[in-house]
Amino acid sequence: MTSIDISHCRELDHRDDLAHLRDEFVLPEGVTYLVGNSLGPMPRAVPERMQEVVTREWAQGLVGSWNDAGWFDQPLTLGDRLAPLVGAGPGQVVVCDTTSLNLFKVVGAALQLRPERRTIVAEAYGFPTDVYMLESMATWTGQHRLALIEQGGAQLDDLLDQGDVAAVVLNHVDYRTGDLLDMAAVTEKVHAAGALAIWDLCHSAGALEIDLPGCDVDFAIGCTYKYLNAGPGSPAYLYVAPRLQADAVQPLSGWHGHAAPFAFTTSYEPAAGISRFRTSSPSILSFPPLAASLDLFASVDMAAVRRKSQAMTDLFIALVDQELGDAVEVASPRDADRRGSQVALRHPHGYQVMRALIERGVQGDFRAPDLMRFGFTPLYLRYEDVWTCVATVREVLETETWRSQPEPSVTAAT
Amino acid sequence: MTSIDISHCRELDHRDDLAHLRDEFVLPEGVTYLVGNSLGPMPRAVPERMQEVVTREWAQGLVGSWNDAGWFDQPLTLGDRLAPLVGAGPGQVVVCDTTSLNLFKVVGAALQLRPERRTIVAEAYGFPTDVYMLESMATWTGQHRLALIEQGGAQLDDLLDQGDVAAVVLNHVDYRTGDLLDMAAVTEKVHAAGALAIWDLCHSAGALEIDLPGCDVDFAIGCTYKYLNAGPGSPAYLYVAPRLQADAVQPLSGWHGHAAPFAFTTSYEPAAGISRFRTSSPSILSFPPLAASLDLFASVDMAAVRRKSQAMTDLFIALVDQELGDAVEVASPRDADRRGSQVALRHPHGYQVMRALIERGVQGDFRAPDLMRFGFTPLYLRYEDVWTCVATVREVLETETWRSQPEPSVTAAT
Repeated sequence: MTSIDISHCRELDHRDDLAHLRDEFVLPEGVTYLVGNSLGPMPRAVPERMQEVVTREWAQGLVGSWNDAGWFDQPLTLGDRLAPLVGAGPGQVVVCDTTSLNLFKVVGAALQLRPERRTIVAEAYGFPTDVYMLESMATWTGQHRLALIEQGGAQLDDLLDQGDVAAVVLNHVDYRTGDLLDMAAVTEKVHAAGALAIWDLCHSAGALEIDLPGCDVDFAIGCTYKYLNAGPGSPAYLYVAPRLQADAVQPLSGWHGHAAPFAFTTSYEPAAGISRFRTSSPSILSFPPLAASLDLFASVDMAAVRRKSQAMTDLFIALVDQELGDAVEVASPRDADRRGSQVALRHPHGYQVMRALIERGVQGDFRAPDLMRFGFTPLYLRYEDVWTCVATVREVLETETWRSQPEPSVTAAT
Repeated sequence: MTSIDISHCRELDHRDDLAHLRDEFVLPEGVTYLVGNSLGPMPRAVPERMQEVVTREWAQGLVGSWNDAGWFDQPLTLGDRLAPLVGAGPGQVVVCDTTSLNLFKVVGAALQLRPERRTIVAEAYGFPTDVYMLESMATWTGQHRLALIEQGGAQLDDLLDQGDVAAVVLNHVDYRTGDLLDMAAVTEKVHAAGALAIWDLCHSAGALEIDLPGCDVDFAIGCTYKYLNAGPGSPAYLYVAPRLQADAVQPLSGWHGHAAPFAFTTSYEPAAGISRFRTSSPSILSFPPLAASLDLFASVDMAAVRRKSQAMTDLFIALVDQELGDAVEVASPRDADRRGSQVALRHPHGYQVMRALIERGVQGDFRAPDLMRFGFTPLYLRYEDVWTCVATVREVLETETWRSQPEPSVTAAT
């Protein structure tokens, strides 16, 4: 096999139909940004849109903008615009609150839909906040238990067989390794056992094609600050299957989810449709970047995005094999169809290696105890960036410059 | 008694020590804005700060800004800066989520602190979302009941006497009439009955002096988009008395409230102190306006703010009596010490009158069935604005131009 060189990578960029989109983002000089799976970069249109909302809608329109600028309905209008990214239609997605809070809502609704069942299943290795929220929910009702499954999924079958599972919460893509689950097959298994399937899309939506209705998913949640590039702490979203919307009632029943929010009645009556999953006043200033980002997504074919993502992660793994050999271990699936848009490399001193990479302008991140994560985001990254990353890892390992970096601390945000 | 004229109002403005602050806000030409008790206007510093956060912290700093720009700790650092407005010290206030969600958290914590008691008390006439959230919480645990009291408070004594009340949720200032409760006296009564006192400060904080520790309050919640001028849907806050912080555990237990959020452990352990009341990633772009607004508040004495507020509402009522006579009814307390920073006028066609006022540049709002609300915010309003408001109401009533306005609709946001 011929070795891959930088010219080959540049040639791939030359032929890339998505290459022009890089200009739609602002990226700092000298940075190879492989953390778009944690916080996406800023779409170029954001500052102007932000000023428009601040100086015209707020400063000039004042309280009237809740109607006149469409503020009150933005969780729904943005939800409709986001819906195609998860294969959904209008009235199936609402943009609101945070992923953790939305998980609490949809699991709460699922428990009410399966009143005779007492078990919630989640992944022990999933993003921790999901587990934390579910622990509290199980304690809170005093009637449920949380069963955690380990990686591999064998325990899921056993738990489902017991016939007591109300809801299963699954991460579509593993936040550490990038493992991609088969949404259709797992959902079918969950349904066969009479349980409801709740998917966390934080590490998949915006990076690959998703068809929630086609997979017959019950509920889904996700964030918008990773692959959707909507800014730090930008609002999350949730999906509810149309067949469940009339009966699903969620526990965080604030006035924005009321059937008549401005009637100011003294008793809660849930709105028809997805709006009942809202709680209270959304942060309007958190929405303009999402609107700008969704404009960009509206211009691309997600199948093309997925193809480039797989090509980039395939290229990365091939270059790791070629350039790094046994110095690191590829911790992500080598089969591109079982992988999200990220690749993790295992190294016993991964924390220090990552610090050294960041000093050299190659930004990935680290997950304890030994994983270096690299996110490959097709909208703004080049194949040449993949080359730069691997070449820099090689340099850091060969020169052992990582040894001068500090040891890891669990208290630092990464 | 000599009649009050516009020159007198202008003279009051001339002598007003807070008058210079009006220049720190952007107000549209030709608008007398009396809805600052619903959505405050934009502090002049906001656009520049917003651009700084967007173009420098996000676009250039990228994911590193969670540490480098202090994003991760902003709920705590902004909480410490907001604390003096409610009489609190460092580590007692956290800025996060929404008022409704924060109510759910603190009531959840209160119920855990009073496990032998089953009754939550709230005001039937309070802002409806409080009641909606509490209804759900009582249903959710399956072990609690929500008891609603009517205006006047006599029922509160009866309920407290029954010895089963865990928590009492009270609005410091009534959102419709501006009635101001005696926080110290009511809290003492609640405590004497063994219950916990939770105050909703949405319609008081930023308009008058508050001393939560001095009143021995247990928990408080509030928003920042009314008198605190932090923008549409800006983040809410909550207060927890230091004596309760070690034992208070809240139900929305996300990773940002964890003792070691970046250890990614599989079990929830609440952080020490107020941080355990956080849930998950805050919207960073919602914070710059609050920071700008708190800078302004840091420069004023809240006693002076309260004095001007009372002088303005006293002037308004005197002018209503003088100019409007029996054409309207003052629905707010005439004793300034029992009143927040707003005055409500009752008129059978209040909705239409308010529409006519807004067409003439005088913005108040309407609450069914017959209340016109006017907020008087000392930082940016002039005594002359009070004159303009009453003169315009008089014109609209005398000419009966309100009759050409549409009838009210409960579906419109106001």
